[in-house]
Amino acid sequence: MRILNGIQASPGIAIAKAYRLEEPEMKVDKEEITNKEFEIQRFREAIQGAKHELEKIMKHTEKTMGADKAEIFGAHLLVLEDPELLTSIEQKIDQESVNAEYATWEIADMFISMFEAMENEYMKERAADIRDVTKRVIAHLLGVSLPNTSMISEPVIIVANDLTPSDTAQLNRQFVKGFVTGGGGRTSHSAIMARSLEIPAVVGTKTVMEHVKNGEQIIIDGFEGKVIIDPQADDVTEYERKELAHEAQKEEWRKLVHKPTVTEDGTHMILAANIGTPQDIASVLENGSQGIGLYRTEFLYMGRDQLPTEEEQFEAYRTVLESMAGKPVVVRTLDIGGDKELPYLNLSKELNPFLGLRAIRLCFVEERLFRIQLRALWRASVYGNLKVMFPMIATLDELRQAKAIFIEEKEKLQSEGTHVADRIEVGMMVETPSSAVMADLFAKEVDFFSIGTNDLIQYTMAADRMNENVSYLYQPYHPAILRLINHVIQAAHKEDKWVGVCGELAGDSIGIPLLLALGVDELSMSATSILPARSQIKNISKDKAASWKRDILHMKSMEEVVQYVKERLPK
Amino acid sequence: MRILNGIQASPGIAIAKAYRLEEPEMKVDKEEITNKEFEIQRFREAIQGAKHELEKIMKHTEKTMGADKAEIFGAHLLVLEDPELLTSIEQKIDQESVNAEYATWEIADMFISMFEAMENEYMKERAADIRDVTKRVIAHLLGVSLPNTSMISEPVIIVANDLTPSDTAQLNRQFVKGFVTGGGGRTSHSAIMARSLEIPAVVGTKTVMEHVKNGEQIIIDGFEGKVIIDPQADDVTEYERKELAHEAQKEEWRKLVHKPTVTEDGTHMILAANIGTPQDIASVLENGSQGIGLYRTEFLYMGRDQLPTEEEQFEAYRTVLESMAGKPVVVRTLDIGGDKELPYLNLSKELNPFLGLRAIRLCFVEERLFRIQLRALWRASVYGNLKVMFPMIATLDELRQAKAIFIEEKEKLQSEGTHVADRIEVGMMVETPSSAVMADLFAKEVDFFSIGTNDLIQYTMAADRMNENVSYLYQPYHPAILRLINHVIQAAHKEDKWVGVCGELAGDSIGIPLLLALGVDELSMSATSILPARSQIKNISKDKAASWKRDILHMKSMEEVVQYVKERLPK
Repeated sequence: MRILNGIQASPGIAIAKAYRLEEPEMKVDKEEITNKEFEIQRFREAIQGAKHELEKIMKHTEKTMGADKAEIFGAHLLVLEDPELLTSIEQKIDQESVNAEYATWEIADMFISMFEAMENEYMKERAADIRDVTKRVIAHLLGVSLPNTSMISEPVIIVANDLTPSDTAQLNRQFVKGFVTGGGGRTSHSAIMARSLEIPAVVGTKTVMEHVKNGEQIIIDGFEGKVIIDPQADDVTEYERKELAHEAQKEEWRKLVHKPTVTEDGTHMILAANIGTPQDIASVLENGSQGIGLYRTEFLYMGRDQLPTEEEQFEAYRTVLESMAGKPVVVRTLDIGGDKELPYLNLSKELNPFLGLRAIRLCFVEERLFRIQLRALWRASVYGNLKVMFPMIATLDELRQAKAIFIEEKEKLQSEGTHVADRIEVGMMVETPSSAVMADLFAKEVDFFSIGTNDLIQYTMAADRMNENVSYLYQPYHPAILRLINHVIQAAHKEDKWVGVCGELAGDSIGIPLLLALGVDELSMSATSILPARSQIKNISKDKAASWKRDILHMKSMEEVVQYVKERLPK
Repeated sequence: MRILNGIQASPGIAIAKAYRLEEPEMKVDKEEITNKEFEIQRFREAIQGAKHELEKIMKHTEKTMGADKAEIFGAHLLVLEDPELLTSIEQKIDQESVNAEYATWEIADMFISMFEAMENEYMKERAADIRDVTKRVIAHLLGVSLPNTSMISEPVIIVANDLTPSDTAQLNRQFVKGFVTGGGGRTSHSAIMARSLEIPAVVGTKTVMEHVKNGEQIIIDGFEGKVIIDPQADDVTEYERKELAHEAQKEEWRKLVHKPTVTEDGTHMILAANIGTPQDIASVLENGSQGIGLYRTEFLYMGRDQLPTEEEQFEAYRTVLESMAGKPVVVRTLDIGGDKELPYLNLSKELNPFLGLRAIRLCFVEERLFRIQLRALWRASVYGNLKVMFPMIATLDELRQAKAIFIEEKEKLQSEGTHVADRIEVGMMVETPSSAVMADLFAKEVDFFSIGTNDLIQYTMAADRMNENVSYLYQPYHPAILRLINHVIQAAHKEDKWVGVCGELAGDSIGIPLLLALGVDELSMSATSILPARSQIKNISKDKAASWKRDILHMKSMEEVVQYVKERLPK
């Protein structure tokens, strides 16, 4: 028996035979070619072939994992349409009379090095995208097939140096019990996909490919980030027990699917889900969500080459509202810009996009686009319990302007004879420090607040949440953040308005008691976090948590806060 | 008589003959050359020639306008050392057998288009830099001289399409009474230089070159942004009166040079100056500054190709301390990163540099560099009244870490037998929302706060202060900002600590009464703003201003605040 340590990417235990996922050898040699036109034609066909494959994988992913997970393939397809990349490769073939494989490999390598040199997590992911896509193109040129995990027909644990998004998308949940990779981190695509598929996974083990033979029995412990190779009978028994305990816990959680969310001392709360597309609804309902707390509508606009029509949007909103059958659905209007680009809008590059033209700011500039979305929302409003909120509000003027446009579109529709809801609750995201500081005045002009902790933390600490140079400053439980959240909740309650939280904080086991202590009304999180959260809340007394508040708001660091909460949580 | 409207770039009235500053014709033709080596040699010599000229202009500017104004030429010199630019030009000469003028013009044009396409004020300025520098190189290649305003020998007003930084640097204050340009805005280099030279200027008039003949009499009104061409006798009399009134006011201000700063009701305040280098001290003393409120030490590190030594830094700090003869000098430790780069540090590019590795964060990573600065400061501490503050503090841990390193360096010096001050006041910049929110806890661990409003506004509103897409959100008098400033001042005073403000807000006629209302102790501004500020403060009652506070902190927009203050200011 040997043990390898890695990073826990997705919880759970898996015990099965190892299936080594290896790349076919793709040796790219430099060759001089004579018929340049033929070579360029060959390259273009490989691009088409890769596109068709990717479209198939994208559809499959959308069906099995939801559209926001499929989004990565939309990004891949855009790589295949990037004129800079394609033209550079064709020029290389033409000017240097080299074979398409070599030209593709060389040019891709140049782009990859450029993005990787940026030492920024986001750019590194883009480098990984280009690598994944060009590998597929080269495979087409060489006439080899990339591994296809959908062929697996017995229970296995996948072992690989790294899983590309395409690999993960093809995993067959029936047989793939878990996976281990040499590379990757907690936020790599494959780790995120594993959590979404609820398959245990360990990543970043570095040497796993050197240690594990094909067909060898292994255990992976997704709680601890461990891989046990060739285990003893005792180990198997122990881990089977651990797995059973986890299953039992999940069984306990499942009993809460149709239960309300109530604290130990009887306070009711709302647990809602964050979604990206109507496809996410199945998981939302299975996990007993009491509503949608954040519908990120930007996924409707991404991974395509033009704006969605009013009709397409209307259909999406109606589907979500109808599926939720009267439960509240909070739709956030378009939040594009920042880290999310829409290539077809031709927005100017900004030096600090997180402090730039994003979300509501962009909607005021591209007002037509905003009005189309609002029309679609009003039209859908009669099919369920719709609430609408605006992102990135910093001043009261912005809120008033957004509300005025919203009402104008209602009136236009009414004068056209279209049936719309009498009234929709209108709220705003609290994610700029400015809006948190001014919450008492904002509270008079909205129906609710939804605190977006991810951005609020980034702006309050002045630290890019995607920049690993300053990741030590991204402190979700820092007293400065808790003070701002407290101020927002106090201000809202004074005006009898409700407050939700829809950032990462809302779904984790330290964040939940803290937000309970501060008096939040609704928590919105990924669907799979809802039942564990409901279970945790059942064991917390709201009154007791509220009594921590004074202490917590006067603490000097996040570490103090975390220790304080941990000491007081029921074991 | 005709009137042109433009943008007021620098206050004052000037009446004189127009001096049209026009570029010599620099026609660049494409020529085929045969001796490539000779052509590349010719190009290299032109680069050297341009360098020598720029170095001369830089020295002249440093002497006449201070080192931070000269900084732009440091940036220009770096353009002349940019391997990407130089290599591209030489390659073009070599590969296409074209003349150096044409290659320079073509390659520069490509870089300029690229930067201009970025639609970002900062990048556009970089495009302007490249244009200015390559024009100088091409002039050398063509053997023509660029206009040299230092040759002017009678009183004139310069009229130009645009003034390059090199043009402005050469202006002879004895004869150049003002200037008008067709292009530019309030924050263009030439506008900033005009204010620093105290020459009246109007920019952005668009068509001035079409309307004004050489030698024609014109009046410029830098208060209103007007140009009067071929004025009537009456107009001349009227503007002469206006000019006299302005001169009289300046005379009044000059009487305050050696006076303390006292409000109408007898409260004393400190008016200090922001400086970049020891060369700025002359103007600081002339303008009756009561100290240095912000010494931006990064200028010591910029416009050069390696770090300044401990000795160089020590000399700079000692010079400032000695010149200020016991008056307080607040030195801010290195604030590099964000919009300020040091090419020789080879820092990674970041996606959002304003939310990245800058200021104290960078100093913790490059700790050796930080320690060298702190040693130089301790060694200089015996030559005057030194106070030190750390920029971009977001958490108490960061403050404690910076203080610990500071004390370690003191102890090392003492154990080496070096004489240092017994104690130095240690403060911090309040520029992250986090530090403002936590000011009550920070106040227990510092001697003073200095509020950096420029950054505090940018982070609180989540709007890049250099991005014109979101400039409408850069609201200095927004109630959210005033609430944070108020909280910081209250927190500091509770612990008997003093608070200064060193952003733009501290020097303007709306900001001053607002900060007085909130109870600030010190204002630090550009030297030329000090006397007008002292004069304004003399006429404001602090008690009366304090009575506005409740109203102001409950206002809903910046417009409301500005109107309220304007209505209450003495006329």
